[in-house]
Amino acid sequence: MKKRVAIVGASGYSGEELIRLLLHHPQGQLTAVTSRQHAGQTIAQVFSRFASHPAAATLRFSEPNPELLAKGADVVFLALPHGVAAEFAIPLIQHGCLVIDLSADFRLKSAEIYKEFYGHDHPAPDLLAKSVYGLPEMHRDKIKGALLVASPGCYPTSVLLPTIPLLRAGLVKPQGIIADSLRGVSGAGKKAETEYLFVECNESARPYGIPKHRHLSEIEEQLSLVAGESVTVQFTPHLIPVNRGILTTLYLAPMEHFNSNEHALRLGEQIAECYQTAYGTEPFVRLLEGKALPDTKNVLGTNAIEIAWRLDPRTGRLIVMSAEDNILKGASGQAVQSMNIMCGFPESAGLV
Amino acid sequence: MKKRVAIVGASGYSGEELIRLLLHHPQGQLTAVTSRQHAGQTIAQVFSRFASHPAAATLRFSEPNPELLAKGADVVFLALPHGVAAEFAIPLIQHGCLVIDLSADFRLKSAEIYKEFYGHDHPAPDLLAKSVYGLPEMHRDKIKGALLVASPGCYPTSVLLPTIPLLRAGLVKPQGIIADSLRGVSGAGKKAETEYLFVECNESARPYGIPKHRHLSEIEEQLSLVAGESVTVQFTPHLIPVNRGILTTLYLAPMEHFNSNEHALRLGEQIAECYQTAYGTEPFVRLLEGKALPDTKNVLGTNAIEIAWRLDPRTGRLIVMSAEDNILKGASGQAVQSMNIMCGFPESAGLV
Amino acid sequence: MKKRVAIVGASGYSGEELIRLLLHHPQGQLTAVTSRQHAGQTIAQVFSRFASHPAAATLRFSEPNPELLAKGADVVFLALPHGVAAEFAIPLIQHGCLVIDLSADFRLKSAEIYKEFYGHDHPAPDLLAKSVYGLPEMHRDKIKGALLVASPGCYPTSVLLPTIPLLRAGLVKPQGIIADSLRGVSGAGKKAETEYLFVECNESARPYGIPKHRHLSEIEEQLSLVAGESVTVQFTPHLIPVNRGILTTLYLAPMEHFNSNEHALRLGEQIAECYQTAYGTEPFVRLLEGKALPDTKNVLGTNAIEIAWRLDPRTGRLIVMSAEDNILKGASGQAVQSMNIMCGFPESAGLV
Amino acid sequence: MKKRVAIVGASGYSGEELIRLLLHHPQGQLTAVTSRQHAGQTIAQVFSRFASHPAAATLRFSEPNPELLAKGADVVFLALPHGVAAEFAIPLIQHGCLVIDLSADFRLKSAEIYKEFYGHDHPAPDLLAKSVYGLPEMHRDKIKGALLVASPGCYPTSVLLPTIPLLRAGLVKPQGIIADSLRGVSGAGKKAETEYLFVECNESARPYGIPKHRHLSEIEEQLSLVAGESVTVQFTPHLIPVNRGILTTLYLAPMEHFNSNEHALRLGEQIAECYQTAYGTEPFVRLLEGKALPDTKNVLGTNAIEIAWRLDPRTGRLIVMSAEDNILKGASGQAVQSMNIMCGFPESAGLV
Repeated sequence: MKKRVAIVGASGYSGEELIRLLLHHPQGQLTAVTSRQHAGQTIAQVFSRFASHPAAATLRFSEPNPELLAKGADVVFLALPHGVAAEFAIPLIQHGCLVIDLSADFRLKSAEIYKEFYGHDHPAPDLLAKSVYGLPEMHRDKIKGALLVASPGCYPTSVLLPTIPLLRAGLVKPQGIIADSLRGVSGAGKKAETEYLFVECNESARPYGIPKHRHLSEIEEQLSLVAGESVTVQFTPHLIPVNRGILTTLYLAPMEHFNSNEHALRLGEQIAECYQTAYGTEPFVRLLEGKALPDTKNVLGTNAIEIAWRLDPRTGRLIVMSAEDNILKGASGQAVQSMNIMCGFPESAGLV
Repeated sequence: MKKRVAIVGASGYSGEELIRLLLHHPQGQLTAVTSRQHAGQTIAQVFSRFASHPAAATLRFSEPNPELLAKGADVVFLALPHGVAAEFAIPLIQHGCLVIDLSADFRLKSAEIYKEFYGHDHPAPDLLAKSVYGLPEMHRDKIKGALLVASPGCYPTSVLLPTIPLLRAGLVKPQGIIADSLRGVSGAGKKAETEYLFVECNESARPYGIPKHRHLSEIEEQLSLVAGESVTVQFTPHLIPVNRGILTTLYLAPMEHFNSNEHALRLGEQIAECYQTAYGTEPFVRLLEGKALPDTKNVLGTNAIEIAWRLDPRTGRLIVMSAEDNILKGASGQAVQSMNIMCGFPESAGLV
Repeated sequence: MKKRVAIVGASGYSGEELIRLLLHHPQGQLTAVTSRQHAGQTIAQVFSRFASHPAAATLRFSEPNPELLAKGADVVFLALPHGVAAEFAIPLIQHGCLVIDLSADFRLKSAEIYKEFYGHDHPAPDLLAKSVYGLPEMHRDKIKGALLVASPGCYPTSVLLPTIPLLRAGLVKPQGIIADSLRGVSGAGKKAETEYLFVECNESARPYGIPKHRHLSEIEEQLSLVAGESVTVQFTPHLIPVNRGILTTLYLAPMEHFNSNEHALRLGEQIAECYQTAYGTEPFVRLLEGKALPDTKNVLGTNAIEIAWRLDPRTGRLIVMSAEDNILKGASGQAVQSMNIMCGFPESAGLV
Repeated sequence: MKKRVAIVGASGYSGEELIRLLLHHPQGQLTAVTSRQHAGQTIAQVFSRFASHPAAATLRFSEPNPELLAKGADVVFLALPHGVAAEFAIPLIQHGCLVIDLSADFRLKSAEIYKEFYGHDHPAPDLLAKSVYGLPEMHRDKIKGALLVASPGCYPTSVLLPTIPLLRAGLVKPQGIIADSLRGVSGAGKKAETEYLFVECNESARPYGIPKHRHLSEIEEQLSLVAGESVTVQFTPHLIPVNRGILTTLYLAPMEHFNSNEHALRLGEQIAECYQTAYGTEPFVRLLEGKALPDTKNVLGTNAIEIAWRLDPRTGRLIVMSAEDNILKGASGQAVQSMNIMCGFPESAGLV
């Protein structure tokens, strides 16, 4: 029997993608979508690209009401702004729903770090301990039994998946990590702001949020948990004129000093083996071989992340690069991956 | 009286931009343009966007012939592939022309480094000592008396201008520098290659040439000259879907350790003063203030480079960002700036 | 049991999309892909975006060999250049394969018109009578029993689907039709030609192939068959900087003269009813309502075509607009739709 | 001595371009720029791309005040929304300023047509008779003595320049004209609206304003004046993902019926001669020859309009295509061209 699924706040880019994924999910059935803005309209009326699907003509957006949602859904996705998601999560969990939150509200374990980065007290600090950080490749077992999953941010996913195995294996130093990221404009959301107009973004490349972007908090917390020490990361996001995609370039310091091609070869074997062990059987992590380097166009529309790396004997550094679709592996796809795990479905169900 | 100017190899993007700049130059007169591909056609026929200019209808592309060029031109720009430029430079200099080369042929002082990065012996090692690296903000006095100017690469310009003043003032460490750059597709030239097709570049972001791009050689040589020691740089170029523009993010280590906002403030004053001293009166270097960060769209079509910086007390690093038009300040505009200096024209003549 | 499916010439954009569709098709199994260029490589090596699919790691491109293909496949898609497809079709049909050809080789009934538009004799004129024009909404019954389906061109699909019902119902005049189309760059194929470089297409909009584009031949032949008279169409294609999508604007003359809003209302009811009758239950034709107008972004990645229309009482004209994904409804998606019909699968199988 | 020039409402795309043109104008001196939004800031602060110009650091945006403006300026450009411009024009003209209005307020001669298309009474109907429609190639003599010039809309310019000479020469029929236009997103202005966000425009092509766009009113009025009869035009604008540029395709009916290549040749000679006579010496109209067709990228950043045409003996139609930069020849460049004429400057002064 199919699980009944609801999406709260389905008017933005992540919500739209959740609708797409869940309309075609083999084991989930979309039973409710909410949006104050679109309440009363059918999915087909709001998003004409889904109109070919039979459910799009009948399923209507409703006002978000936790009690009603809890009655009609087994799983609820929250695609709401930061701060608002927590309010909805509490009653839904009390009513026995599985909740997958795409906002930042439950991603941190520490309420103090939340306050430092988000500027206000956490609205439901008790739930922080119960929530599981929804990075399947790292926390699959915890996700399996979780009632509340905090789906990771798009930037953190692109940084954590390439870094954690190396850190866990002791191959790179936990300090001094630099993550330089490029992201498409959908990451800014569907907000009518001048700086995201076509004319302002096309033929433009620009950094922003330097040096203390909010996503740093979850990147650092997750890396600290792995490293067993407090990790501070340099993170510089850039806006580039693509709709979707994140390309992250990581500058890492191998634990072992090397400065020759021979030494790089030996070290390279360890890195290759480390990644192979970590991700060799992962359905959504693609370890590139040979001369291939990540390219966002190769992951667009998919839940995959591409990873490649190069050792530079001239500088003694390890460069790791990753590419993902910020709305899929960086948001809605990964959230569905968590749902699949929570519900005991095949992990790739409904995802490519 | 106007100087007579020729462009050799004017069929690519840099050559086209040189034509534009020189057609409207107040003190230079374009007397010859060469291109094997376009020989016999007028400028208006090849580049219809210049057709409104009277000279475009009469000036025809010719086969490149150094002797004929030398008779009709006082200044010759070489917009040729690497390796080919050197052949042309020798006879032109012998005939008394001022030569400004946009290729990499004369940018290095060391013939060995040339061979290491370009894979073959330098075709005219004797000229290396005579050529001047055409970065006006750094080598204005030498450019003034030069017979041969090697105009810098687009990436090196975006790295060197932000870095050199800090290095010279001893504010940052010469080792461990990372330069992460994004560049538009025009940087790859007007070559019919599948990887630069619209469909392959649009909605794509990708690194390439990792970890040892050719432009590293001139970046490192110039920084080494300033630092008085051998400098090795980590440089990672990325291709992004814009026609023009380079956005470079530099990760630097201040000589002085800092880890508080107060300390950052004091150090920041020194950095601001250093840049102000170096560039306060430079016509084409724009030091951004307040919250402004570089954006390639703000320099498109201009010879300007924008620079901004941030100190991060969490990591102890200095982040410096620059934006330039890769075809102007990164190539043809800077070359004309050098011409202006060589010929005693106002340095901004014909440039915006 | 699944049908075994092969793709001949799977290296271009249409071929790549066929691979994507067939890897995920519920009732077809991809058993062979051919490409001279990629022979020996796996699908995952050539198209990394498919690498998550198990078959991508094992299925290798082979040299195209009709006899071998016929042994291993029940259905063969030909994604080959015009002129080459015919050579392959003949032996495949002789060996009992169902053939779906995406080239123009079998789209015309008349070998003379073929010669007029393609400049050489038709390579297999006997097959012209046997082939069925694969526009499912028009020729579903014939496709059902066909051995050879000629899948329509992308432009013709965008013109024919909006026009045919009106013409058939006698609501518009068969003469004087104008079709003005905008198409993304993927329509030009994956060819390394300077005019399709990113820099040459970005920030560019241009007409081409004016006034006698090859696709006119099949547009006119199909419309003539419907109208029962020889129809001549004005067709002006334009290239715009998007990867995918066709937006066609049609200028039609209603059979009935009208010049008032009231009259337009009455006539509009007839048009609405005509379209409703023709397409009300079609899974891939979307009749827009209210103020909605077609937008290529709403059909990207889908097999749908959007249609809207406006009567203009000031000019007495009917404007009909359509939007489709040129690689899906305009090529590979429609071809799979035909396969579904030929094989007795649900018509939407494997398509969204 | 330089004329003193002011720009009222210089915060949008047209205003920004006027600033650029006037900062570099050889015979005009920018003495005032107004903007409620930016009042108090320097040009350099608001538009960093102009910061290299000395005046950008000192000239500050002010609140718009007609009396003060009139004291400090000989020429005033109004880059204001429709309806607001008229209010400013009246006092400025009374104070003896030459006024060039980029809005639609004074483009029509008929106050009734204004009301029909703009939905409210004209705010200053008396001035309609005094204003001159600022299409220099058509109304140069009247512009010379004008006190108030209404600079044409971007779409009308792209339609009128290709059509008027043919209509005047009696070569095409005045009725049945169709103008199909593609325009970049800057044409929608710098407004924070969801439909103009990067993600909503990129990979999108869509018609809008069908069938009765406001610009029709001035197109029809101007064509009616030339034809000596009331002309009704079919006009369909489309939005495409470029920053700038208009590509217009016109479908015209030659007065003389033709249906053979020979006849087309003879008729073609008349058309070529007609255009040559009209535009052979115009600095900003480029008649393309041979196989060349208009391309917006060839006119970007220039005040030029490209025109090409094809006769189609199959349909008996004449297809005329034009390309212009919607912010230059379509707005600010053409306005400066009018200023040059009004002030007795060379018509190309400050324009390329």
